[in-house]
Amino acid sequence: MALIILAHPNIEVSLANKTIIEELQKEKNLNIEVRNIAKMYPDFNIDVREEQQALLRHQTVVFQYPFYWYSLPAILKHWFDEVFLYQFAYGSKGDKLKGKNFVPSFTVGSSEESYTALGFQHFRVLEFCKSLEQTAYHSQMKYVDPIYFHGTSLAAGYTEEEIRNKAKTHAGRLIELLRSCD
Amino acid sequence: MALIILAHPNIEVSLANKTIIEELQKEKNLNIEVRNIAKMYPDFNIDVREEQQALLRHQTVVFQYPFYWYSLPAILKHWFDEVFLYQFAYGSKGDKLKGKNFVPSFTVGSSEESYTALGFQHFRVLEFCKSLEQTAYHSQMKYVDPIYFHGTSLAAGYTEEEIRNKAKTHAGRLIELLRSCD
Repeated sequence: MALIILAHPNIEVSLANKTIIEELQKEKNLNIEVRNIAKMYPDFNIDVREEQQALLRHQTVVFQYPFYWYSLPAILKHWFDEVFLYQFAYGSKGDKLKGKNFVPSFTVGSSEESYTALGFQHFRVLEFCKSLEQTAYHSQMKYVDPIYFHGTSLAAGYTEEEIRNKAKTHAGRLIELLRSCD
Repeated sequence: MALIILAHPNIEVSLANKTIIEELQKEKNLNIEVRNIAKMYPDFNIDVREEQQALLRHQTVVFQYPFYWYSLPAILKHWFDEVFLYQFAYGSKGDKLKGKNFVPSFTVGSSEESYTALGFQHFRVLEFCKSLEQTAYHSQMKYVDPIYFHGTSLAAGYTEEEIRNKAKTHAGRLIELLRSCD
């Protein structure tokens, strides 16, 4: 049913992203394939054909990652650069992803208030997502508005329990979305 | 004077980015240090300390790259993820880059008309640059509006001569900017 491209450079030390993936994997009758690309490709040497085959097996693709510098972790950007090729994802014959659901699912370190014109992040989260949105359109995929939550930074004072609870709520929303895509 | 972070996955086959770099290197009395990070780190294993030291040597940092999926090539995103660390680029003691000039300099494959709400890229180029802009602010650097040009795609019908000429004009603008930063 759904392909989960997990792009966390070190999922073992993650709190939020790890909880989300665990919740997905615990869920009964949810048919997902999780690909932990940072672990699979520690030297960034992506197996393009294998990743393209994985995409072809599914109708929905979820990108699960932490927001890094207002964008994707490099391993996920590399995955797009390598896998979304001309005449596969775009171009005159590049319609292999046409109609598939494109679902960004990420976690943001600082607060919602910080992501406003008067906050220290200056822009709203969705303003930072346009590159991803247009990547979906250029590949003829159905862009689904991102699922995300704020406050995963322990340094900023959020507690482990808070983060885990928010991650569980996030996972619940994602599961609901995946069931509705089914 | 200026650090040029060159992030083209294969500069030898590049037309636009290669021409820009060659023009910079030909220019007399222009004190630049070019770091070809894709060539230096083919396995993405960035020497963080060395890159931080390079940053400390210069007042101006130019990021030279081709626009890939409306954003940075992965090697450049990885460079930010690895080098712009807590207590170096940001955080209570992270003021090492404060006041330095942050200059995006890139090339865009398709036409200016395509990058409009009614064009097939749907958004304007600057709408895709906000992640980079906020990266500069968060590091207390002086963001300079990007220097870029459209039409580097041979597949889209632009000729080699056209691309080379536009790259030379681009390099001229960049040199002028670097001299004014001096």
